[in-house]
Amino acid sequence: MPCASIVSAPSCAFPFRSRSGSSGWISPTALWVPTWSWKGGRSESRRSMRRGEVRATVIEKETPEAERPETFLRGVDEAHSSTSVRARFEKMIREAQDSVCSALEAADGGAKFKEDVWSRPGGGGGISRVLQDGAVWEKAGVNVSVVYGVMPPEAYRAAKGAPSDQKPGPVPFFAAGISSVLHPKNPFAPTLHFNYRYFETDAPKDAPGAPRQWWFGGGTDLTPAYIFEEDVKHFHSIQKRACDKFDPTFYPRFKKWCDDYFYIKHRGERRGLGGIFFDDLNDYDQEMLLSFATECANSVIPAYLPIIDKRKDIPFTEHQKAWQQLRRGRYVEFNLVYDRGTTFGLKTGGRIESILVSLPLTARWEYDHKPEEGSEEWKLLDACMNPKEWI
Amino acid sequence: MPCASIVSAPSCAFPFRSRSGSSGWISPTALWVPTWSWKGGRSESRRSMRRGEVRATVIEKETPEAERPETFLRGVDEAHSSTSVRARFEKMIREAQDSVCSALEAADGGAKFKEDVWSRPGGGGGISRVLQDGAVWEKAGVNVSVVYGVMPPEAYRAAKGAPSDQKPGPVPFFAAGISSVLHPKNPFAPTLHFNYRYFETDAPKDAPGAPRQWWFGGGTDLTPAYIFEEDVKHFHSIQKRACDKFDPTFYPRFKKWCDDYFYIKHRGERRGLGGIFFDDLNDYDQEMLLSFATECANSVIPAYLPIIDKRKDIPFTEHQKAWQQLRRGRYVEFNLVYDRGTTFGLKTGGRIESILVSLPLTARWEYDHKPEEGSEEWKLLDACMNPKEWI
Repeated sequence: MPCASIVSAPSCAFPFRSRSGSSGWISPTALWVPTWSWKGGRSESRRSMRRGEVRATVIEKETPEAERPETFLRGVDEAHSSTSVRARFEKMIREAQDSVCSALEAADGGAKFKEDVWSRPGGGGGISRVLQDGAVWEKAGVNVSVVYGVMPPEAYRAAKGAPSDQKPGPVPFFAAGISSVLHPKNPFAPTLHFNYRYFETDAPKDAPGAPRQWWFGGGTDLTPAYIFEEDVKHFHSIQKRACDKFDPTFYPRFKKWCDDYFYIKHRGERRGLGGIFFDDLNDYDQEMLLSFATECANSVIPAYLPIIDKRKDIPFTEHQKAWQQLRRGRYVEFNLVYDRGTTFGLKTGGRIESILVSLPLTARWEYDHKPEEGSEEWKLLDACMNPKEWI
Repeated sequence: MPCASIVSAPSCAFPFRSRSGSSGWISPTALWVPTWSWKGGRSESRRSMRRGEVRATVIEKETPEAERPETFLRGVDEAHSSTSVRARFEKMIREAQDSVCSALEAADGGAKFKEDVWSRPGGGGGISRVLQDGAVWEKAGVNVSVVYGVMPPEAYRAAKGAPSDQKPGPVPFFAAGISSVLHPKNPFAPTLHFNYRYFETDAPKDAPGAPRQWWFGGGTDLTPAYIFEEDVKHFHSIQKRACDKFDPTFYPRFKKWCDDYFYIKHRGERRGLGGIFFDDLNDYDQEMLLSFATECANSVIPAYLPIIDKRKDIPFTEHQKAWQQLRRGRYVEFNLVYDRGTTFGLKTGGRIESILVSLPLTARWEYDHKPEEGSEEWKLLDACMNPKEWI
């Protein structure tokens, strides 16, 4: 059975980063029982975390489920399902998954998402939906997952910045997120990525006074092969509108964060034309950030589908298709070389098919390709090298 | 000028690893003057090297050359051009580049390699040849390069295992290599990779008694999308014949090393059906290893072209082409995620187009693709998951 290693339930990985600047990664593939192996003592652990070099020694196997459960929350959380942030965040991402998939299916005009539902014995699970080779989309994935895991104490200390004389045991955590990449066929129709996630630790029982921690992270960004200025302006305007409802500093700050994050260093190019990106957000009111994440997730379709409607049927040449494929190659380079969720997921034994659903169906690498100066391809490359203020 | 970062001269990266197991990487993009920045003190440097996390702070820019020079050796080496291993290795790889490219052009029946020649002011340079969209090959790159660089003292210490109370200054090194990836169009014609390299340090002037070091490394491996057992047997037989001329332990040892190195850990699959791979070889007679590397390089064409001749014109279906493209996707995954030369080159600012010429022209990722058990695709996957003894 050479295919024994191919399992059938999806996952993805979440980053966390403390306000003090240290960072780490929590994989939804983590076990509810302790699974993390950190090398050496405290300083080594902190260093490893900064480099994202944590190793998970055991990964709990997912169990395919025939039907979507009402909730992936464990009983103790379910009991507070109307009030807890955990429960409301899960509800939000599952509603967002439903509404995004319905809107994409309607826009595609026939193709349907294939769904995989899975759970883990220790709690949590997920729903992975993939639409492949549709009329509009070459490959579209929309995944949600809920994870109960255990943070190694060093991770908690580094994330929290707790004094080193406090020695908490492993810290249980909860993580939930929605993650999506949509690659259309038409080279004038842009790729979209969005991801919203919520992360929470339990208060460690053996470190009295150590607080429960929580963070929000995520973003929505656009990756066209050709620039239609009105499209990019529209996309960024919707992101700004969502941000401005909560804080006028959000859009400029998260727009820059997005340009900085989706950077293909070896090319000196961004993956695309940006949008918003934020991580480790916890220094605002928790209810406000839950509403903000909800607003962002709800803005995906109004930000994206009007662009798709306008571009999906524009006639294109072989040359234009090849350029799109070259940009897809850049997408692959970013995701495999730099994206922290992807690289972490590959290292820790996450479900590969779910992690790599973000890769395009097809991509291309030509030797030493240089678009002609002033051409439409050159303009896109220029905007990826020199990020612009679109609004 | 958004394309300012695209330069026009090629390079690649070389690994070195000491007999004691520590390892590091030497990039041909390194300057002749000291360019390496190692974090922290000795133990940190050793750790960084093990992880391949060295950073080059400055990369000397290549200068395109209109013509191939007789040699890329610096004057002091050139004076010993008939006797030194440096000179004879350069001569060998340049002759191999010529003969391989001539044989490939003849087999392709019309397409010609495009050549880029370049040098560096501090010494060294290279010749990059790429054939794209030929009749037989989708993308074929054959590069040679010669590098004069400076190893940070920590790298020398770690590689040599010298006592830590010896504090040599930066150690000049010489590296030369030939590197090639050949991706055919026909899904029944396999991809070939080969790379042979020689590495040498000068004796450090300020550490009396510290010796000059040298290593050979390289290998040739085959990556088909479909198994023709006679082809794989033929390929491995030629590798074994080359090995057996020098040492009966070479083939079994280097065959296993190859299976271990080209491992896509997150898939549990090898990239292909192997061949031979060796690194840091210095515990044999230097003349013998020079002859061995020469024999290996000269075995590339007899190992590969008879297979291409038999498979290049076999009719194929869209399904078979798509499977080849999926396997090309695996090739991309290995090279971007695991290959040490590639990942190091990307991190240290090597010439991207030369480093990534190894990527196929086109590749494909389907969600959760599983070949039907017993199918030809399944047999290939099985052999990638469970390496076989072919001869």
